[in-house]
Amino acid sequence: MAKHIVTFDIVREPVAVSTGTLLTEAAREAGLDIAQPCGGQGRCGRCAVQVTDGRVRQRSALRLSAEDVANGYVLACQAVVEGDVSIHVPPQETLERRLTTDRVVADIQIPSGYDPAVDQTLRRVWLTLPPPSMDNQTDDWNRLQTAVYQQTGVESLSISLPLLRQMGSVLREGGWRVTAVFASQPPGGSQTSGRLVALLPGHVPEDEPLWGIAADIGTTTVSVWLVDLFSGRVAQQAAEYNRQIRRGEDVISRIIYASKHGPAEMQALVLQTINGLVDRVCRRQKAAKESVLKATIAGNSAMIHLLLGVPAESIRLSPFVTAVNHIPLLTAAEMGLDIHPEAVVDCLPGVAGYVGADITAGVLSSGLDDSEQVSLFLDIGTNGEMVLGCSDWLVTCACSAGPAFEGAGVRRGMRATRGAIEEVWINGDTLEPTIRVIGDAPAKGFCGSGLISLLAEMFLTSVIDKAGHFNSTRPTDRIRQGEHGWEYVVVWGDEGHENGRHANGSPPHDIAITHVDVDNLLRAKAAIYAGFSVLADSVGVPLEMVERALIGGAFGKYINVEKAVEIGLLPDMPWEQFRFLGNTAVLGAYQALLSQKARERIADIASRMTYIELSADNSFYDAFTSALFLPHTELSRFPSVAVARLNHQSVQVED
Amino acid sequence: MAKHIVTFDIVREPVAVSTGTLLTEAAREAGLDIAQPCGGQGRCGRCAVQVTDGRVRQRSALRLSAEDVANGYVLACQAVVEGDVSIHVPPQETLERRLTTDRVVADIQIPSGYDPAVDQTLRRVWLTLPPPSMDNQTDDWNRLQTAVYQQTGVESLSISLPLLRQMGSVLREGGWRVTAVFASQPPGGSQTSGRLVALLPGHVPEDEPLWGIAADIGTTTVSVWLVDLFSGRVAQQAAEYNRQIRRGEDVISRIIYASKHGPAEMQALVLQTINGLVDRVCRRQKAAKESVLKATIAGNSAMIHLLLGVPAESIRLSPFVTAVNHIPLLTAAEMGLDIHPEAVVDCLPGVAGYVGADITAGVLSSGLDDSEQVSLFLDIGTNGEMVLGCSDWLVTCACSAGPAFEGAGVRRGMRATRGAIEEVWINGDTLEPTIRVIGDAPAKGFCGSGLISLLAEMFLTSVIDKAGHFNSTRPTDRIRQGEHGWEYVVVWGDEGHENGRHANGSPPHDIAITHVDVDNLLRAKAAIYAGFSVLADSVGVPLEMVERALIGGAFGKYINVEKAVEIGLLPDMPWEQFRFLGNTAVLGAYQALLSQKARERIADIASRMTYIELSADNSFYDAFTSALFLPHTELSRFPSVAVARLNHQSVQVED
Repeated sequence: MAKHIVTFDIVREPVAVSTGTLLTEAAREAGLDIAQPCGGQGRCGRCAVQVTDGRVRQRSALRLSAEDVANGYVLACQAVVEGDVSIHVPPQETLERRLTTDRVVADIQIPSGYDPAVDQTLRRVWLTLPPPSMDNQTDDWNRLQTAVYQQTGVESLSISLPLLRQMGSVLREGGWRVTAVFASQPPGGSQTSGRLVALLPGHVPEDEPLWGIAADIGTTTVSVWLVDLFSGRVAQQAAEYNRQIRRGEDVISRIIYASKHGPAEMQALVLQTINGLVDRVCRRQKAAKESVLKATIAGNSAMIHLLLGVPAESIRLSPFVTAVNHIPLLTAAEMGLDIHPEAVVDCLPGVAGYVGADITAGVLSSGLDDSEQVSLFLDIGTNGEMVLGCSDWLVTCACSAGPAFEGAGVRRGMRATRGAIEEVWINGDTLEPTIRVIGDAPAKGFCGSGLISLLAEMFLTSVIDKAGHFNSTRPTDRIRQGEHGWEYVVVWGDEGHENGRHANGSPPHDIAITHVDVDNLLRAKAAIYAGFSVLADSVGVPLEMVERALIGGAFGKYINVEKAVEIGLLPDMPWEQFRFLGNTAVLGAYQALLSQKARERIADIASRMTYIELSADNSFYDAFTSALFLPHTELSRFPSVAVARLNHQSVQVED
Repeated sequence: MAKHIVTFDIVREPVAVSTGTLLTEAAREAGLDIAQPCGGQGRCGRCAVQVTDGRVRQRSALRLSAEDVANGYVLACQAVVEGDVSIHVPPQETLERRLTTDRVVADIQIPSGYDPAVDQTLRRVWLTLPPPSMDNQTDDWNRLQTAVYQQTGVESLSISLPLLRQMGSVLREGGWRVTAVFASQPPGGSQTSGRLVALLPGHVPEDEPLWGIAADIGTTTVSVWLVDLFSGRVAQQAAEYNRQIRRGEDVISRIIYASKHGPAEMQALVLQTINGLVDRVCRRQKAAKESVLKATIAGNSAMIHLLLGVPAESIRLSPFVTAVNHIPLLTAAEMGLDIHPEAVVDCLPGVAGYVGADITAGVLSSGLDDSEQVSLFLDIGTNGEMVLGCSDWLVTCACSAGPAFEGAGVRRGMRATRGAIEEVWINGDTLEPTIRVIGDAPAKGFCGSGLISLLAEMFLTSVIDKAGHFNSTRPTDRIRQGEHGWEYVVVWGDEGHENGRHANGSPPHDIAITHVDVDNLLRAKAAIYAGFSVLADSVGVPLEMVERALIGGAFGKYINVEKAVEIGLLPDMPWEQFRFLGNTAVLGAYQALLSQKARERIADIASRMTYIELSADNSFYDAFTSALFLPHTELSRFPSVAVARLNHQSVQVED
């Protein structure tokens, strides 16, 4: 078959590929991994590349603007090689500014007083063994155990078969001087037993880092931090979309996929994602992957099950139980993580099918369990999980809010990627919107924060009423009967969006929000608010008594809190009581990676948390129904919103 | 390439193979494993098959008699298919009567008072779990642990990732009734912790056997017993040549091969051997291989290293240390044993490079360590290992006797297979020999017992003197100057061997023993006797004080003890003080498989045994030199031999 030469401008060597090869595959051949958040389905537009010479055949250019097309942009996942071609690959990060912290290491605080000798389960020792002789014919393994015992007091050391196989040559290569790393076992047990994790010839320098990985396996995003276990320093961070996305956007569809097709593919996809990230952070740090000796992993229960190849079907079906909440310590080799094969892999414990290790780790890093203040911890991602509590008690629940706030279930919804409308302001008089779009791109649709903003603005300007009905009497042609009933047009397809700060093209269609969209959003926010209510009721604490709202996840980083309160998604409390903590799950995994005490605190959080199953809770439906209004049936729960609305209306009146 | 039809009479379906395929390969295609003790080198003759129709091309027919060739016999390992052919496969067992106990289960005594509930590390429990409900949403694993705890008191149960993956469906398939098997861990520890080994849906009948394997990995022969762990009964036994033989006859040449080519091939060969035997015993018993949940393995140190893929090179080189004497418990999956992947595999502990688990297990089963009588335990195989001691003390050493008594190092030596001369009598007057040959076959050479017998007879009839020199003045043409110096012809090539009871053909050459052969045998027996001497000297016990000689291994089963004493290979003690115990290694493995107390006794034996390195012992060389005579320099050590020789000579004189 004919071969064609494909040249990528950021890769030294061109590659020769057959007719019909996708550009993404050609890129992989060339050692270049072009991000495909949508799994190569041509839906996200993130893999856009520019053809600078030659031609390709395109299956779809759905997500490209006319301008992009005119400039030779194609979607790499939809473009097929049919002849020699040269490709310009735009910088990936600029396309995806919200995919957090890749390349840039956020300033993560090392836990104060971190002392690896006390806190760390991994221990590195430098040993000098007496060489064997005719007077001392003991076996290598006994010789090594004796040296470890003499130096550390560890009496009982275990070893795996692969390490047994290497041991003899490492001892001899090092001239009976070796560096051993072992993990205390059980981690919280006595200091007298351990498992040998690595054995290196010679004495490695004391300042050579000992690497660990903290990771969070999100339904949407997988995050990996590379950590020096001795200093505690976070050396690298990387994040990437979970490659499972191509097999389903949410947890439920992935469980269904895995049940139908067996767990292997889902497991392989998430392993590819995490191993790709490990490779990335190690390359940047110029650290060998084999030098990573420990990994601590957070993630929701379904993601952890899929990662381990454990069937997750029971999570989906009533009574929604997991196979396992407290996962035994594993080795990297047995679970497929591409670091040192004997590395300790610690999957953090979850509580229930929909309250997983991302929440227990999140609670740890939020400090909720360590404070006398009653706090609400909230993680809104593809699902909404929340914890109410303090150092004395913890209750938790999960709302099947659906991924509306990630852009799903909304006609023009999308993820927070290039072209997403992330903020909307509506002029109270003209009802004309002003928008802010992600990336230097024409608007394509709404991401979660944009939807919250839009909903709040429509409510405050009476485009919709408190039940979410469109007010057709308002004087604007943007409120109209569309194909799907009443809707409000935010961006005209033929008008472009000169209101947008980054406008550089027109969308092919009008971008509107429909009454079906509004209903879906109301249901999603009502489910979350009802969750708060049920939790508070279950412990007899009124929501007003909650002293802090601790918001985890990427979601919290970008939403406009005021607007989230205005629609009744977040409880009405003063701004200063909100804390936005970012990826609390990976932060908790990081803390547990460093400190066995933190790790035990997570287990303690998991065992102390009372899980409330909302689908079995009689009060949930009432609370949900009451919350199906903007901001809520009982306006008294949202005093600040009442005031804001009044102000807005009076401003309008004054105008 | 042309395909040819090969039909084996004992296999239903013919197979189609390409030109040039060996008959052994064609047989494998047909699902038939023709034994090839020599590794397919055409040296042992055991794979002889009969061509009943068509023709094959033979590379070599070295080991076949003229009669065999006339009858259409070919060596399957040397015969190449070039056209359609029909093959008669003779019954394999009749070719190899000394390959012990295959098909026939020897009457093995179940240890008295065996109680699986007390002695066994595996425990089987029948559990009924409360099904999950909205009121009881705990995870499957916790539910299972709780049920085990409530029924058995086992608080800490561990589980592997593969079992975690199966657990949910097994629980549901069984309707929350399951049968669990777990191993106490550590085996000798408290009864409150264990490792889950198997989980089966439903409650299996109480009388369903729980299978275990006891095995001995010999340099020459691998033995496997299938044991019901609840009754203790040995249900099946099988033995086969170690397939590593094709890569070297003795331990040293195998270590060298593994060092040169990497350990993988040697490991694969012995795994094929043991897995083939496991398959054989399971088929005969109609037991699934997955129902075998425990294996206990004895073997010399090099064999155990090669089995596990652990480099054995250090065993060969001074100071002769092993990588590991006490091997951690493994799972079948990690070491490649084809039984239940989670099965407990216990490789028994050795003492030194040349005193392995075959000896520690052998000492256990011999009862030496449990008696106040000072006893000598002796295992002469490819090497000679011995233990002197009693319940109070144990000393051990290994003699690099070389495999002379297995037929190597002797010009006409061979293993104890079809055609081997196993016993010789020499008429004191005529010096004409009478021989007994293994199998219904013409004599081909001498096996170990035949060599001992021959040496003793030559000495008693003064064919050789006490230094092993041929006495050319004796009146017979059988003593002659041959190609390699003086020799004694046992079988004339052209005369056939009408003296033999099983004569059915003539060897192509004269079968003689040369002075070089005699020297090699003298050195081998001297090394072994010198071993006894050094052991006895080391503890200050004269050999005469030794109350029992416990002979392990197949060797002991077939030798004529009287003749072994006559040549000074065994110490001179009354017949009734010798015990021939057969395969003491596999018997010890069997006892350890059943009883944790027996297993701990083996560990105790290993740690109590004082190993004496003969190559570093100054007295060894003197003892060796003194033993280079028939029976010994000091005839006072062999009073019975002096008498026998006198009698013999007086009989001659009287004649």
